[in-house]
Amino acid sequence: MNSNDTRTSAPLIPEPTLRRLPWYLAYVSLLHTRGVAYVSSTAIAREINVESSQIAKDLSYLAIKGKTRIGYEVGELERVLRGFLGFNRDHNAVMIGVGSLGAALIADSGLKRYGLDIVAGFDVAPAVIGTTIGSVPIFDMARFAELRRPLGADIAIIAVPVEQAQPVADAAVAAGIKGLWNFAPCRLRVPDGIVIENTSFYAHLAVIYNRLVPRP
Amino acid sequence: MNSNDTRTSAPLIPEPTLRRLPWYLAYVSLLHTRGVAYVSSTAIAREINVESSQIAKDLSYLAIKGKTRIGYEVGELERVLRGFLGFNRDHNAVMIGVGSLGAALIADSGLKRYGLDIVAGFDVAPAVIGTTIGSVPIFDMARFAELRRPLGADIAIIAVPVEQAQPVADAAVAAGIKGLWNFAPCRLRVPDGIVIENTSFYAHLAVIYNRLVPRP
Repeated sequence: MNSNDTRTSAPLIPEPTLRRLPWYLAYVSLLHTRGVAYVSSTAIAREINVESSQIAKDLSYLAIKGKTRIGYEVGELERVLRGFLGFNRDHNAVMIGVGSLGAALIADSGLKRYGLDIVAGFDVAPAVIGTTIGSVPIFDMARFAELRRPLGADIAIIAVPVEQAQPVADAAVAAGIKGLWNFAPCRLRVPDGIVIENTSFYAHLAVIYNRLVPRP
Repeated sequence: MNSNDTRTSAPLIPEPTLRRLPWYLAYVSLLHTRGVAYVSSTAIAREINVESSQIAKDLSYLAIKGKTRIGYEVGELERVLRGFLGFNRDHNAVMIGVGSLGAALIADSGLKRYGLDIVAGFDVAPAVIGTTIGSVPIFDMARFAELRRPLGADIAIIAVPVEQAQPVADAAVAAGIKGLWNFAPCRLRVPDGIVIENTSFYAHLAVIYNRLVPRP
């Protein structure tokens, strides 16, 4: 059984589980490079700071069984986790907004190692249209609907100023984008069935700054 | 009364509120550039997709009062929000790990507009030590304890491989860092009183990939 079969036939995995699985993968990959053969959910729990019963429950969504008193085979667990999470397959994505953040994310080759292949950028600024970042071409946003399908992209990353975020999200969805990763500091409205994830750097900074202030 | 006085004397603001305030700020800034004079919590609610009673409660932590039937003065609300969130003040930070992601974040000038001033990077790779990214110098990680205080940095951003994340976090805290912004896909253990925020790109990608898969 491969991880694809498992994933599409399994019940919808809860989002908190989905968010924890990459932690387990990171730790298990580390064990793998260290040559460790087996790992128990108790050992993962100690390292990751999650209850071992929660870990066992999370891993029960995967097509892998631990052995009593031995645990999970490290190489297999790594492979199954990576496959389940889709990190071993390319997912074509486009960047909308090639300002400072968008350009930085295109330049972050780390995303590719997690299966995100940014194949093009889109912007409205004449200064960047027609240029490339690394080998990634930057197109006029006006050509988004025309180029989306040839680019094979189901995912759009939004890194535009806040006032442009909803309009470009609407345009992306109208052109057939199925998943949005939004870096603009606002909540986007999308039709049912469109996946949206928000990463707000500013919310993190707000928490850090506020909690750093000495209090009476 | 300025927002500093308010902030340090106010009760500890709940984290969910703190995470919503940047959304309000983004929207109010937008209204400001459009020349809108007043905004009600109902109008913000419509735009941001948060209950207006929640917005009124969130804004009650700030030193600002809305006027009955008119709402908040837009310019004042923007200024008070920005001040409260600390986005109008420089917070010196250092980047630990100047690989693909770390270098990209140093290059993202957007962070500076939200008060995060990355004044130096640290790495262990001889190829990058002694170089600069923009005007940001990259130092040997071995010099962290020596340079932390002269750099005036209370915040460290962690963008190292997962197996290095805990050791560099420990070194940063030992050298006097008070706030950590962790991009490595793992949970870090820190002493009480140290602020830590996690941004896991991989958790977001895991959710997007999984939810994009068509299901029976």
